[in-house]
Amino acid sequence: MKVTLIGLGRMGSAMAPNLIKAGHSLTVFNRTRSRSEPFAKMGAAVAETVGAATSGAEVVITLLADDQAVESVVFSADGILQQLPRDAIHVSMSTISVALSRRLAEAHDERGQQYLAVPVFGRPEAAAAAKLFVVAGGPAPAIARCLPLFEAIGQKTLMVGEDAPSANVVKLTGNFLITTVIEGLAESVALARKQGVDPRVLMEVLTGSLFSAPVYQTYGRMIATDNFEPVGFRMPLGLKDNRLLMAAAEEAAVPMPMASLIHDRFLSAIAQGMEEADWSAIARLSLRNAGL
Amino acid sequence: MKVTLIGLGRMGSAMAPNLIKAGHSLTVFNRTRSRSEPFAKMGAAVAETVGAATSGAEVVITLLADDQAVESVVFSADGILQQLPRDAIHVSMSTISVALSRRLAEAHDERGQQYLAVPVFGRPEAAAAAKLFVVAGGPAPAIARCLPLFEAIGQKTLMVGEDAPSANVVKLTGNFLITTVIEGLAESVALARKQGVDPRVLMEVLTGSLFSAPVYQTYGRMIATDNFEPVGFRMPLGLKDNRLLMAAAEEAAVPMPMASLIHDRFLSAIAQGMEEADWSAIARLSLRNAGL
Amino acid sequence: MKVTLIGLGRMGSAMAPNLIKAGHSLTVFNRTRSRSEPFAKMGAAVAETVGAATSGAEVVITLLADDQAVESVVFSADGILQQLPRDAIHVSMSTISVALSRRLAEAHDERGQQYLAVPVFGRPEAAAAAKLFVVAGGPAPAIARCLPLFEAIGQKTLMVGEDAPSANVVKLTGNFLITTVIEGLAESVALARKQGVDPRVLMEVLTGSLFSAPVYQTYGRMIATDNFEPVGFRMPLGLKDNRLLMAAAEEAAVPMPMASLIHDRFLSAIAQGMEEADWSAIARLSLRNAGL
Amino acid sequence: MKVTLIGLGRMGSAMAPNLIKAGHSLTVFNRTRSRSEPFAKMGAAVAETVGAATSGAEVVITLLADDQAVESVVFSADGILQQLPRDAIHVSMSTISVALSRRLAEAHDERGQQYLAVPVFGRPEAAAAAKLFVVAGGPAPAIARCLPLFEAIGQKTLMVGEDAPSANVVKLTGNFLITTVIEGLAESVALARKQGVDPRVLMEVLTGSLFSAPVYQTYGRMIATDNFEPVGFRMPLGLKDNRLLMAAAEEAAVPMPMASLIHDRFLSAIAQGMEEADWSAIARLSLRNAGL
Repeated sequence: MKVTLIGLGRMGSAMAPNLIKAGHSLTVFNRTRSRSEPFAKMGAAVAETVGAATSGAEVVITLLADDQAVESVVFSADGILQQLPRDAIHVSMSTISVALSRRLAEAHDERGQQYLAVPVFGRPEAAAAAKLFVVAGGPAPAIARCLPLFEAIGQKTLMVGEDAPSANVVKLTGNFLITTVIEGLAESVALARKQGVDPRVLMEVLTGSLFSAPVYQTYGRMIATDNFEPVGFRMPLGLKDNRLLMAAAEEAAVPMPMASLIHDRFLSAIAQGMEEADWSAIARLSLRNAGL
Repeated sequence: MKVTLIGLGRMGSAMAPNLIKAGHSLTVFNRTRSRSEPFAKMGAAVAETVGAATSGAEVVITLLADDQAVESVVFSADGILQQLPRDAIHVSMSTISVALSRRLAEAHDERGQQYLAVPVFGRPEAAAAAKLFVVAGGPAPAIARCLPLFEAIGQKTLMVGEDAPSANVVKLTGNFLITTVIEGLAESVALARKQGVDPRVLMEVLTGSLFSAPVYQTYGRMIATDNFEPVGFRMPLGLKDNRLLMAAAEEAAVPMPMASLIHDRFLSAIAQGMEEADWSAIARLSLRNAGL
Repeated sequence: MKVTLIGLGRMGSAMAPNLIKAGHSLTVFNRTRSRSEPFAKMGAAVAETVGAATSGAEVVITLLADDQAVESVVFSADGILQQLPRDAIHVSMSTISVALSRRLAEAHDERGQQYLAVPVFGRPEAAAAAKLFVVAGGPAPAIARCLPLFEAIGQKTLMVGEDAPSANVVKLTGNFLITTVIEGLAESVALARKQGVDPRVLMEVLTGSLFSAPVYQTYGRMIATDNFEPVGFRMPLGLKDNRLLMAAAEEAAVPMPMASLIHDRFLSAIAQGMEEADWSAIARLSLRNAGL
Repeated sequence: MKVTLIGLGRMGSAMAPNLIKAGHSLTVFNRTRSRSEPFAKMGAAVAETVGAATSGAEVVITLLADDQAVESVVFSADGILQQLPRDAIHVSMSTISVALSRRLAEAHDERGQQYLAVPVFGRPEAAAAAKLFVVAGGPAPAIARCLPLFEAIGQKTLMVGEDAPSANVVKLTGNFLITTVIEGLAESVALARKQGVDPRVLMEVLTGSLFSAPVYQTYGRMIATDNFEPVGFRMPLGLKDNRLLMAAAEEAAVPMPMASLIHDRFLSAIAQGMEEADWSAIARLSLRNAGL
């Protein structure tokens, strides 16, 4: 398949080799051109502009930092909306607002192009290992055409239905639930430690019984050992995703008190010098507040 | 083994047959005598008093509603403390306060008796199916002696260490984490529904990817379908366990804002007529607050 | 003084007659022209465009609904920035974001115009009675020139200092504190009623002792009698001001958990059909949650 | 009047001289006898036991630290309940639980004694200056008999009605509202400081306009200057009063999310070494969380 990948950050860079390995004809574009070099060596074409990257593609994947970055590659004069062929597919993998996803769906539809919202769950390591969970929203035929791509990067593709922005809602919800796991474990470890219980024993019991999901194991270990390295997902990105969730909640008039609590945690963490830390380091706040 | 079980509520009644089947010599005691009848038919001895139930036992299991009930069978004139033979073991399975567990550990120790705190995770169905998770705290030799009992009722025994009350901390923490899962899913489902996402699809994606633990499946299904039957654990018991958690947190000066949020949820639920509902019905509050 | 007032909503309409009565030469502009009629009869000039309203003015007061409305009258082609004479003063009375206020200060400064941020405290009745509290931020000489205007509409002018946007911070903070008073009283009344205490007696005692400020009297009466009429400030405006506060807090990395709680209250209120109610009706949520 | 005062802590010691000055015949009792000495010199009788202090009194005022202290002087063998003459009055000024106040009302009623719940608002300085606000609950004739006492210690007596425990609800509510003022001001000052606004200017504007009540002035000054001396009311007492409030709320099934937030603040403050500080120092947490 003729695939273009726009955005070579941590996630995009981890994903690109898997697309090449799976035999697709990959073109890459990144604002900072130097990040494209390694992929050129693996056989990818390197485009000089978004337009050039898009004009001949069957599928364009965007994997960018935020709404603004996506808007700029889609709506600019030489952007995806202008250059993408009819019936070709824009696969938006970035974590963006539900509102922007809805706008993209409408804009592509008006031009006879296909739009899929396909956020992924997984940290960069999972992307490199082709172990992502791929959450796909949009028209079934377009999803069917893209399945080989999704299989090249993920362990499983989960369908959300015809309405593409639903996939963004699901993604934001998933990230929200991860933050509630982090906060819940943080409060629990603070209690355990001050009640004289070894937090590693606590985690063994919990993950060995009711809380067997990997997310408890991963974050439980980090929190129990008070070690939040390596940094897989920086604090400001956590704040950003929380902001997108709360924007979707405000738009729909849904109070989410746990999300509000997490919002305040991210602000505290950034205010207290943890801007460069992994988002899970909000757990430190529960420990500090308890005098630990 | 000569085992006595004091307390034939939902959990005790589900557990007793498994002890008999495993070949132990079981004596039962319940304040309301009629609840003992079915077990007499299965071969259990029925004691008329706590003292009689205790005086010849190797192991006395208590499985009662709250601190007060446990205090009354342990510290009364003809109670467990008076009647339990030296070196015999009191296995406290009730969800009680950390403070009472500590007091029990000391009181039994002074009398040369053994004390284990052995709370379990699992609803009555799991108890009936011998699928409980058994969390054992206390001296290793005493735990070793009781292992055949734990294996008769559970799928797995998890050791917490020599300090018995640590098992109570772990139990309260586990129940707290379940409530955070319920609340997190409830807020998520409210958002999904008002954003036009089918909550069953949301749950399929979440439990099919990051949140594979049974606790997400069980409560996710209840919340997505807005059906909180059958009632496995009544609302006031949820409030009680939250109160015990917060008491342990206050004692150790540990702020737990999520636990505070759950506390308010339980009070709202009871105030709004959900006293007889399953504790997971606090999820209804997120739906109501969002106008659903 | 040659004064222009742009924006004849509830507050602007209540304020305009006081400017005329004080002897100022008033020009008014409102997008919906019909709202200007009553003031024409009182002697105000009615401008057809923002530009015409602005070009000869010594002082232009804007009193509009939100950031977007202010941006559109200031930054448009025939807008205030283009038409305001050098050294003339833009007095921004709208409750807008701190960020926009900062942008306005810079833009006017570049053009040799004066900018003051002058939000007011008080409901429309207070504006009509010339009883507003006027909070003035910006260069002292410009404030001095405008004092006659402020005295025409308010009971007191409070100076915030040279940095105009500081006045917006103070205004948002004041509105936030009002919401905390409403919420605090609401929770208190819910408790009192369910403990059998007459809420009017509660309010008499509280406002007769420690909480003598008018804000407690005004809202205390509304909450104690469960009567939130008349609607002085609609729910979505409350939500908007809370959003501006939280944006300023996020920008500066300041967690404000009480503001987060209020945010969730506004969303609940709107979701539950209180969109047209006075913002103080968030108090109903505390009563409902308590089963009242 | 023949009055007995039991409890010579900060508040009792500040109040006693005013009772003597007003011409009453005062007997004092304090567990630590040495605290009675200064009052003996002023002319008070010093009783050796609670019983001796009570047996001849027309009115016995108790002003003690907590429920337990009150229970012990009332219900012990030689306690107030045993020794107070028929028709004599027990005036309970301590901040105690609503539940205990109800129990006291019933117990005294059964013995033909009078019971009034008469908590006061004001710090020790106010007690010394006879400037307390006296909140009186109970039968009107008994209150009428005690009015000369209340006038000797306070600036104003506020009636709550025939049901004595209502006065305790009002008192707990008032203290709760003070904590919400502290928290609201703390969050506001954190925002102001990080947005470059002088917090003293903020306070001048706020207390000079909408928030003129003394409670805003007192705590506003402390928070704006980050100076929480002198210690008028220690942190653990704040936690205790919050606990009594939340117990009353739980008893009546009333969720109070702001009270929960304050609860967590008190625990954080104590965990972080502020046990000896004034309760208003919870404001430091908002500053710390914002990185100040």
